[in-house]
Amino acid sequence: MNAIQIKNVTKRYQDVTALDNVSFTFEHGKIYGFLGRNGAGKSTLINIIANRIFADEGEVLVDNLPAKENMEVHEKVFCMSEADLYDTGLKLKNHFKWTARFYDSFDIEKAFSVAKKFNLDTEKKYKELSKGYQSIFKLTIALALNVPYVVFDEPVLGLDANHRELFYELLLQDYEDNQRTIIIATHLIEEVANIIEEVVLINEGKVLLQETVEELMNTGYCISGLSEEVDIYCKDKKVIGYDELGSLKLAYILGERERLPKNSGLQISNINLQKLFVKLTEKGGN
Amino acid sequence: MNAIQIKNVTKRYQDVTALDNVSFTFEHGKIYGFLGRNGAGKSTLINIIANRIFADEGEVLVDNLPAKENMEVHEKVFCMSEADLYDTGLKLKNHFKWTARFYDSFDIEKAFSVAKKFNLDTEKKYKELSKGYQSIFKLTIALALNVPYVVFDEPVLGLDANHRELFYELLLQDYEDNQRTIIIATHLIEEVANIIEEVVLINEGKVLLQETVEELMNTGYCISGLSEEVDIYCKDKKVIGYDELGSLKLAYILGERERLPKNSGLQISNINLQKLFVKLTEKGGN
Repeated sequence: MNAIQIKNVTKRYQDVTALDNVSFTFEHGKIYGFLGRNGAGKSTLINIIANRIFADEGEVLVDNLPAKENMEVHEKVFCMSEADLYDTGLKLKNHFKWTARFYDSFDIEKAFSVAKKFNLDTEKKYKELSKGYQSIFKLTIALALNVPYVVFDEPVLGLDANHRELFYELLLQDYEDNQRTIIIATHLIEEVANIIEEVVLINEGKVLLQETVEELMNTGYCISGLSEEVDIYCKDKKVIGYDELGSLKLAYILGERERLPKNSGLQISNINLQKLFVKLTEKGGN
Repeated sequence: MNAIQIKNVTKRYQDVTALDNVSFTFEHGKIYGFLGRNGAGKSTLINIIANRIFADEGEVLVDNLPAKENMEVHEKVFCMSEADLYDTGLKLKNHFKWTARFYDSFDIEKAFSVAKKFNLDTEKKYKELSKGYQSIFKLTIALALNVPYVVFDEPVLGLDANHRELFYELLLQDYEDNQRTIIIATHLIEEVANIIEEVVLINEGKVLLQETVEELMNTGYCISGLSEEVDIYCKDKKVIGYDELGSLKLAYILGERERLPKNSGLQISNINLQKLFVKLTEKGGN
């Protein structure tokens, strides 16, 4: 099976169970949104897939091979990380050279070309970079590695809006050229809603849901129109949030879509994935 | 004058001019969005205001007092920072105690109460926190300090969507109770568009614009409706971007608003601040 299979993975830290018997599969050739709140267990699982830490129980299989300390798997999976694993005194261009030695599939020309698009100065040292440019350096390496499975962990942390748009554009170009598995762990859910095909949502160390974006979109809908009209429509509906755009009001509603009367002035559209996420993962007491 | 006045500030790093003769004022009692692209000079200016680095030329005045190495100013201004200035081995609750010693106006009870709302465990050490919780710890201190000028530097970096909503809510509550100056440096512009009153946008070391959000909103508008109708309307307009929400299409247009024909089916609303920012700060060649 061409996939990353997470099988009954449990990981504990002292008194905290970070992952509690987690099982699911990232199939080959899809773009996933890997979502969860701060502390949900996302980074722990990414670190287990990347072989940086080990599960207490269970295992991760990559194309049927155990991921744990396996050089064959090393060439198949790359996890961009939040953690600073880099020699901070080394120039970026030399990081590219080292990466090329460790990964046969690293396209160093592509790395320099991506760096140029982001105005990343490869003569600089990692420690001289701002938070935003540290992220850009890491995502440049991930984009230039032609491995079948690539995990982007908070790829746009600290990036300005223009750079975020550029990243999403390059990611989709890359995917069109080479249909590998792309896993994006991010808190900027609305920004990736149009990119990802499937969502894995973990919450408090467990998988809360795994669904296609299409299925998720069918769990609710959005109504927009003039504020008064929207308020009247929503009276007997399960509304999970509102947005206002000038005179326009948008209401996010759970439940099946219903046909609107022709002359209502209201318009129906897809639900906002981020609103849905906030509602699904909120706790009492906040 | 009750204000932070930036007067002809220039700062150079080797061959780069990070700030080039920058002058503007943050008035007392307003909420500012301090915006700019990665590398625009935002962090450099915040560090000069915070007395962490010094300007090569020019000066910063706080309520008419020079900010440079001035203990009176120290009690007036607090800059939350991207940089990790914390003793990483110290428990958070002890950080709160130290902050109370350094700042007379630190409300330690409020700090513990804000921490609780974010589920921040104050028995933990700073180095044990994830990126998201490091941000939460820093913004907790900034929220609990009753200084007249507070600068939030990327306050929601790494925060999940629920925690971002909570932060914006607490910030507005705080502002209602105590109308001080709040300066938010962020790349998540759309999320703060409803919070900020005025924008200072710096680009390549210079002030590109300083305007109220209302003035900015008047530089353009947004048209929404069915895709075909929007496309027809936009033919002779200066469109800077599109968004699609299901069957609904939104076009962001520069120029003066014009009245729509009654039966057009289109709706007019405010422009998206982030789209405007991307357009104003984009370079050729990217």
